[in-house]
Parts: sequence; structure tokens; C-alpha cells
Amino acid sequence: MASAKQRVCGTTTPPVPLKPMSRVAVCGGTFGNKMAGVYLAKEWLKDPSELRRQTFSATPFLVNPRAAEKLLRYVEKDIGVCFLDSILKSPDTHDTPYEEKRAKEINRLFGPKGSDEAYDLLLDMHTSPCNMGACIIVDNAQNYFAMHLARYVQKHFAVMKAPIYLNMSQKEKSGRITSIARCGIGLELGPVSLERLRAEDYKHMRTLINCCLDFTDKFNQGGMFPAFEVEAYQFSGLEMFPQGPDGEVSAMVHPKIQDHDFLPVKPGNPVFQTFQGQDIAYSGDASFCPVFANDGALFRSKAAFVKTDKLRFSIPAIQATAKSSELPPEKDST
Amino acid sequence: MASAKQRVCGTTTPPVPLKPMSRVAVCGGTFGNKMAGVYLAKEWLKDPSELRRQTFSATPFLVNPRAAEKLLRYVEKDIGVCFLDSILKSPDTHDTPYEEKRAKEINRLFGPKGSDEAYDLLLDMHTSPCNMGACIIVDNAQNYFAMHLARYVQKHFAVMKAPIYLNMSQKEKSGRITSIARCGIGLELGPVSLERLRAEDYKHMRTLINCCLDFTDKFNQGGMFPAFEVEAYQFSGLEMFPQGPDGEVSAMVHPKIQDHDFLPVKPGNPVFQTFQGQDIAYSGDASFCPVFANDGALFRSKAAFVKTDKLRFSIPAIQATAKSSELPPEKDST
Repeated sequence: MASAKQRVCGTTTPPVPLKPMSRVAVCGGTFGNKMAGVYLAKEWLKDPSELRRQTFSATPFLVNPRAAEKLLRYVEKDIGVCFLDSILKSPDTHDTPYEEKRAKEINRLFGPKGSDEAYDLLLDMHTSPCNMGACIIVDNAQNYFAMHLARYVQKHFAVMKAPIYLNMSQKEKSGRITSIARCGIGLELGPVSLERLRAEDYKHMRTLINCCLDFTDKFNQGGMFPAFEVEAYQFSGLEMFPQGPDGEVSAMVHPKIQDHDFLPVKPGNPVFQTFQGQDIAYSGDASFCPVFANDGALFRSKAAFVKTDKLRFSIPAIQATAKSSELPPEKDST
Repeated sequence: MASAKQRVCGTTTPPVPLKPMSRVAVCGGTFGNKMAGVYLAKEWLKDPSELRRQTFSATPFLVNPRAAEKLLRYVEKDIGVCFLDSILKSPDTHDTPYEEKRAKEINRLFGPKGSDEAYDLLLDMHTSPCNMGACIIVDNAQNYFAMHLARYVQKHFAVMKAPIYLNMSQKEKSGRITSIARCGIGLELGPVSLERLRAEDYKHMRTLINCCLDFTDKFNQGGMFPAFEVEAYQFSGLEMFPQGPDGEVSAMVHPKIQDHDFLPVKPGNPVFQTFQGQDIAYSGDASFCPVFANDGALFRSKAAFVKTDKLRFSIPAIQATAKSSELPPEKDST
């Protein structure tokens, strides 16, 4: 790894010191029809012992219990946009949607967003019908802790590919739940059908979260994590569905893109297929990798997929600063 | 086919005369998150020419437009239980759910249920996350027209298996939309994730419906369809999820059943897996074939799967009576 380290600055640099992750939370059911996360959260609420590590005990919670009960994404408003400051700081009125109230409650417990009291780490469990593998969603590649965690998962979660998706989300502009913690990471397992609690998905998500917690514990124990290079898929834009004069979606995601998330698409490649069976080629001038191809949540806003650039990043070494009184003396991580 | 015919009654019997299917309807979006049907209905509403045959023109319709718009199963009440006489014949009040009103409207247009004015044939397009293949849902094996249609699909729809599921539904006790027509048949394509409009599913459903219409046209033209024997999966009961003292689901469908719809399960075989990973064996005393294993709609009522008996049926020859003035002179079907 020395050579990778040298690539960062041309010389061996000391590890970037980062605050330990003392207060850790794991949430499921941000969308109530994504069942693996819902049921893991429920089980861990009954018995959180599996979330204990030497340096912390992660707190589980169910984000949207009402939606989970009804197997719905949400009941009144998509909670994925409710963690905006403008919502979190506004007073409740008689017509405040349930999800806004719940977002405020969660923000009081695990935030407040942007404050020193906010939780250090929030792991947000999602599943998707798209072919996501065990996708790790990080805001950007400068989130070194998250990038090291992702790297650790890529090495230790052997069940499937674990691509890193950089959503380029800015905390202050984000309505996502992950924005309330100092570091929020999404885990998106797929393909997993909505509304289905599958034993294998449940097991995979459980293993995935345990893997994230193992890394966090090792990090907290103060070991140095060496620099590395890694590929990640960085958000570059949304591709909208073709639409007819009536505003209706007039074509479908092409079978060559459907289920082929993360695989490169070149200008001229087919990206859509009309209801009559005609192919529509990509008219952009640069290759991209589709992610969340034909996701229901995107479909609601007539977006077909997220376009990403596959980029290579040099991530510097990191090491936890031993600030927290909870932490044992530093020892070498493995 | 002569030998199969003989098995019915021990001798060659004349074909059962059946009324032709003059008024045919094709519907999608009974559940608004089952997208192939929703979008086929929408396309055919714009241009129904594909549904024209020599002996009829099928009428397309979208069952639940409001749910389809929101990508929801339903908005106020599951329309799958709204076609009961008790609902269809009750007057609207200010708090009548949208789906009940819509059911009444559909019943006026394509029923009334149980009357001579009811449509002859209703094809109801569904998709399911379960591994259903191109499942043909028929009320019972005495519905000879439907059984012959299913047989035709099994022969001509080469893309995937097309098992016949007999739901043993009784028209007068059924709340399903198919109960309003003289003959209602469900087409359940799967595995297909909810909320996703996939080009391949759309194409398969389109081919499937065309195949059903082709058969209906051949039948209407008066040809004789010989007797045959066929296997079908007959409803025998629902298997409920194990539940904890709090009434919560306490185990998941076992990976050996999940995605293995229609494959036999014997007493003692594992059917569930707890959240801690322990297998739970089937304690019943007879083998069965699971169908709709781990379907979201069943999950809502804490049912894990439908149990069916795989049975062999002798279906007699059929021939349309040439009552309808729309019909051309009889000629031999192919």
C-alpha cells in the first residue's frame, strides 16, 4: 500500500487524523416497503446486543413505523426530502405531514443536524429493485472515513460486489436522513423487490451492517488505515424518460441498461425503448455508468436513471484521534 | 388427442357447446404498482387496433388510474375486494372509498356482475414479484373455455412456463374484478418487481394477451377444440407466517420456498427461517405446491404463501355455438 500512499502527494504522508465514531446509529425503514431494513431494525430494537462493539454500542431505530406497517414507501410525504433545515426548523402546524413530524423527532434524537451533538455515524439500510449489489452510498470522496469503510466492506463482504456511489450530496442542501449525522452512509442492497422480506436479503444486510460496525470499531481503536486507490461512481446527473406531448412517459429503460447498473454506456448506445419497440440511442457526448436504473422512486419524477462518472480516487491514510474517553489505548488494527 | 378425449367418459363425446366470446375486455392497473399492465392499458386506450380480431374487438381499460398515477397498489381500499355484490349494490355515501366507487363504475360498464349484460370475457393483467412464470389464473377446471385458453397459451407462448392456478373462487363470493364478467381470467407474470416498468415484462405481457385474444378468436370462429389432459395447481389453503406473542411475523419464508413457486414441498421440509437463522419445518401431513410465495399482498394479512394441490384434469372438447350475429360461418380452427 506504500506506493498507493505515495500517489496521494508524491511522498509518504502521515495519516489524516479523524475524530472517533463514538455515537453510532443504524436505521431501517426510511422507506417502509424496503423490508430487510425494516425487520432488522425491529429485531435490533428488541435485542441490540449484536450492535455492540468494544468502542461503542450502535443504536438501532425504525425511521418510518407507520409506512412500515402499511408496506408503503411513505404515508403522507416522502421522508427522503424531510431532513432539510427549512423543514426541521419550522414549527408544526395542524397539517404538517406525519413524515415531517417524524423527521423532526429523529433530528432531536440523532442530530440536531449540523450541531456538535449530532451522532457521529448513521448507517441507513436500504434495498432497491435495481442491480445495486451491496452499494455503499457516500456523499463524496473527501469523506475519508466513509471511503475507508467502503474499502473495508469491499474486502470483507464477500457475498457480492460492493460498488461505491458518490451522490455529491451537500449536508445543508440535503433532505436525506443521512445528512443529520456527522457522517451518514447509505447501504443499498439490490436487486431486492419492494414489499418482500426475503431471508437471504435479510442475512446479507445483517452481514453488511456487522461488517461496517467491525470497521468502525477497528478505526475507533486507533489503528492506522493505509492509503489506497479506489474506483467510485460519482453522480453527474439524472436522465429523464422521453415524454409525449401529454407529459406521459413515452418509452422504457432499454433492456441493455435495465439490470446493468454500473456498466458503461457510450454515446449512440440504446438507452430507451418505445412502447412500440423502437430503440432510442443516447444522444449525450460522453460515456456514463447508469445507477438506480428504472427505480420506482425515480420513475415518480419521470427520471429513468442516475448518470455517474466512474472515477479513480486516491484516499489518504486515516487514523482516529484518541479524544473519546470511552476509547481504550491505541493498538494496531488488522 | 383422441385418447385424451376417451379418458373423459370412456368414449368419444361430442364437444361441449359454449357461447362465443363476443364482448371481450382487457384491463391493467387493478393494482397501480404493477406497471406492465398499467402501461399496456394506457397504450391500448390510445390505440386499441392491436386488440381487434376477426370476431371481436377487445376493449382496454385502466382499473385504478389514481393508484397508477401514484405507483401505489391502491389509494383508499384494495380494489381486489371491491367487486362483492354487497359493495356493488350499495349506494355511495360521502365516505365511500375511491376504489369502491371505481368498482361500481367498472361494474356498470363491463358487468353488471351476474347479469346477461355482463362482458363475456375479461383478461386481467397482473405482475408479481413471485416466480409465477406466465401464470394463468382460472376459477376452476370446470371453466372449460379458460382451460382451453390456458392450454393454447402453454403451447404458443414459448417464452416461459405458463402454469394454471385454480383459485377456486366463487363468483358470488368473490371481490375480484374478474368476477364481473361471464368468464374472468387473470394473467400473472413474474418475477417482476413492483413499481418498475420493464421493457421485457411489457413485451411478454403484450405477447401473452395477444395469444389469449388469438385463441378467443379461433374459438369464436367455431372450430372444435379437442379434449386434453392437463396439470393445474388448485388452491387448498393459505399458510400463515409464524407470529410472536405480539402478533408480529417472527420468521421469513425459507430460501428453499422463496422463488420456488409451484415446486412440491413435503411434510418435514423447511418452510420458514427465523430472524436468528433457525429453520422451521412444515408440520402439515400432506405435500403441497406453494404459489405466490412471499407476496407483498399476502404479507399484509400475515400469510406467507398459497398452498395448492397439483392435480391432473381431463378437459372435454369444446366448440362455440354460432349464436352471435357478429360471427362468420364456422370454419375449422387450426
